[in-house]
Amino acid sequence: MLHRASTPFRRFLSTSSFPARNATPEVLDKLRSLLGDRLSTATAVREHHGKDESYHSAPPPDAVAFVNNTEEVAKVLKICNESKTPVIPFGAGSSLEGHISAVSGGISLDLTGMNSVVNIEPENMSCRVQCGVTRLQLESELRATGLFFPVDPGADATLGGMVATNASGTTTVRYGNMKSNVLGLTAVFPNGEIVRTGSKARKSSAGYDLTRLLIGSEGTLAVVTEVELRLHGVPETQRIAVCSFPAIQNAVDTCTAIMQMGIPVARMELMDANTMDATNKYSKLNNKVTPSLVIELNGTEDEIATQTEMIEALIADFEVQKIDWATSTEERAHLMKARHAAWYATLNMVPNSRGLSTDVCVPLSQLTQVIVDTQADLQASNLIGNIVGHVGDGNFHVMLPFLPDNYEPIRAFSDRLIERALAAGGTCTGEHGIGLGKKKYLELEHGEASINIMRTIKQAIDPNHILNPGKLF
Amino acid sequence: MLHRASTPFRRFLSTSSFPARNATPEVLDKLRSLLGDRLSTATAVREHHGKDESYHSAPPPDAVAFVNNTEEVAKVLKICNESKTPVIPFGAGSSLEGHISAVSGGISLDLTGMNSVVNIEPENMSCRVQCGVTRLQLESELRATGLFFPVDPGADATLGGMVATNASGTTTVRYGNMKSNVLGLTAVFPNGEIVRTGSKARKSSAGYDLTRLLIGSEGTLAVVTEVELRLHGVPETQRIAVCSFPAIQNAVDTCTAIMQMGIPVARMELMDANTMDATNKYSKLNNKVTPSLVIELNGTEDEIATQTEMIEALIADFEVQKIDWATSTEERAHLMKARHAAWYATLNMVPNSRGLSTDVCVPLSQLTQVIVDTQADLQASNLIGNIVGHVGDGNFHVMLPFLPDNYEPIRAFSDRLIERALAAGGTCTGEHGIGLGKKKYLELEHGEASINIMRTIKQAIDPNHILNPGKLF
Repeated sequence: MLHRASTPFRRFLSTSSFPARNATPEVLDKLRSLLGDRLSTATAVREHHGKDESYHSAPPPDAVAFVNNTEEVAKVLKICNESKTPVIPFGAGSSLEGHISAVSGGISLDLTGMNSVVNIEPENMSCRVQCGVTRLQLESELRATGLFFPVDPGADATLGGMVATNASGTTTVRYGNMKSNVLGLTAVFPNGEIVRTGSKARKSSAGYDLTRLLIGSEGTLAVVTEVELRLHGVPETQRIAVCSFPAIQNAVDTCTAIMQMGIPVARMELMDANTMDATNKYSKLNNKVTPSLVIELNGTEDEIATQTEMIEALIADFEVQKIDWATSTEERAHLMKARHAAWYATLNMVPNSRGLSTDVCVPLSQLTQVIVDTQADLQASNLIGNIVGHVGDGNFHVMLPFLPDNYEPIRAFSDRLIERALAAGGTCTGEHGIGLGKKKYLELEHGEASINIMRTIKQAIDPNHILNPGKLF
Repeated sequence: MLHRASTPFRRFLSTSSFPARNATPEVLDKLRSLLGDRLSTATAVREHHGKDESYHSAPPPDAVAFVNNTEEVAKVLKICNESKTPVIPFGAGSSLEGHISAVSGGISLDLTGMNSVVNIEPENMSCRVQCGVTRLQLESELRATGLFFPVDPGADATLGGMVATNASGTTTVRYGNMKSNVLGLTAVFPNGEIVRTGSKARKSSAGYDLTRLLIGSEGTLAVVTEVELRLHGVPETQRIAVCSFPAIQNAVDTCTAIMQMGIPVARMELMDANTMDATNKYSKLNNKVTPSLVIELNGTEDEIATQTEMIEALIADFEVQKIDWATSTEERAHLMKARHAAWYATLNMVPNSRGLSTDVCVPLSQLTQVIVDTQADLQASNLIGNIVGHVGDGNFHVMLPFLPDNYEPIRAFSDRLIERALAAGGTCTGEHGIGLGKKKYLELEHGEASINIMRTIKQAIDPNHILNPGKLF
């Protein structure tokens, strides 16, 4: 058995439900004659491709195929489809739900070599990138254009990975998530067919929306190789405030009030006192250690002045203790970098830990209650857990660092949180996806009839179940 | 043959490609025992249900089933699925592409009785409606809440119909289309399974996006019976300007400049000189008969003042001749009503005509050239055609009134326009859908491989092809 790696964390995976379908020597030969030394079976390479940012065990693939273009992806898929060999697309490895684990063996399809920006069309405010381009690479390549791509999941994920999980993040409250900002895709289906979805136009009603069917499909229906992105103008001015509150409910109530007022904030991030503390230590900041909202405004000087006034008037009603405005680029960048590092700051609290991050998203009307109940649960369970949230969307994370012996109570806490979110009319995952870790919640959330339709689609499009098996369902 | 109605326009339909699958007496008996006198085979009722706003011929259904709830829809679908009888969902009948034609016979499923607003949750800025609720009905039911549903296709369509075609319209430039404003659905699949998609949360990454797969599927995959909608706060102030230009390219260039500046206009409508003239006559207005942009701003007094200033500074560069600002509710309402009546104003130019409306949507960078070329083509072809457009999205319509004898040149003009739009990287339909009229363009736009995936999905979900046969494919 090639595919059962031994790590301290492998026991969290119930391996019995994943029948082995390892790549045969014949398949490896065929792939080697296609890719030469871009097919690797070296242990270190394989282990690297079984590992992501999550707590999930890391069964490495049987081999890693480093592909350079869409046609090669098509050829790899054809070979694997004929032999029913699993194919697991791999980008930055920043999944938090074990998406890249080779639970049944098979080939990891490393797409990081496909990292060109194909073109930028400033006049259409759009660009086309290969799937292996990363978020920060794109940010840097767009710098001279006055345009930016807004979806910011924190991690330096690849755009292909961001399509796979329907990424969103800190700016979604203003600019939307991947579903709102992807105009079209090039995707390779299991039979090797190359399909171009969408167009360069901002909207369309021409046929089934294959673009949005593939966004969030977690690599289980097709391998996305190119992405047409909608860009936005870099705002004239940006301003960030850190607002400190006496209790978490004041912070969340402020958030919902701002949303109901329709103030177009560009970011609205909740960080609880624990997170502020961890972030101060990890990123050498000096913020007040209280529940806080980090609010970013984008616009012209006039617009920002108006919005600042509205927010300051409103926020006073919620017993705000302190508002620190930062306008210099350096201050803003440092603060956002610290926010993005909150995951590592949290893991840093418990040496040698791995982390589980919850990802519920609930109706705004229920957000305060769900967060308050969750914080009470954390305290009652005596668990270390830091709360951060893209609260303008109703999405928040509890980041729980843990050692192998402490998995069960963490998992039980996560179960209770998801049940709380579903009871409130929400979803078990706002942006991380289902992967390995949330499969049992998918049915709980949508019901059997809905899952049957999803399975019907999967069966019709990938009848040999070669694409990322064991994930989602 | 029950289903071949004789109207002056029926010859535009190539009936040979639609094999008859009329409802048998046994099926009608089963439906009658389910619905009693809510199953009608009266000629007038049937003919009403074969007719929409389009130029397409009107084969009426064999019978009309008036259903009252989701469970009844499920029962009707089960009966029809067992007997492979076509089912054609029917709402307001405002389709412009023949969506409701019973081209193979079968049952028209009249959903207008399902017209309750199920609930309104102001604190979550959401509401749930039955599919038969119309746009204006919803507007009126939301009036007291301070919230509104922004998608406005002009026609008083049902929300179910708006889901079916992925409607958008005048406000999409600011607030998005149905895909951005529907949180979830209740839908009945051909086998009678009732599925609830989405949630009340603003985003989710939990599984395949059945919500957006159904939006725009034109009633070919499932019958949508309830819709969970995202609402927006009614802006403090609204202001509309009619801006007159010497030539159409000045108007369109102004539009693209405003979009590239990122000014968050709430509406930005192009009307060519012909449309201004027709609308003046039909709606008793007195606007200057020149190519015009109608721009609406929504926001606080301060925001609107800032935006007005920015637009006036910018628009001067494009040789604007006149800017008429209207702020009174009456003036604004009258103007928007006139804009919405442009279709009837156009038909009114040619007594006894029917109309074909094109619906291309192109990249913003190509919009001016495509519109200028289209206007030149209109003149060279000696056709009567009025141009209106949701130009902030790159979407515009040429509304062509015609008499039966004049169909061929109209159709040829439409063909040329669609080819122009596709060559520019756009889509054949921004918001009306494919229906009967644009089927040949679907493949031209997406390619065979893409259509094969769509057909695979259709076949898997509706193997007996009972749902709205003959449309889309």
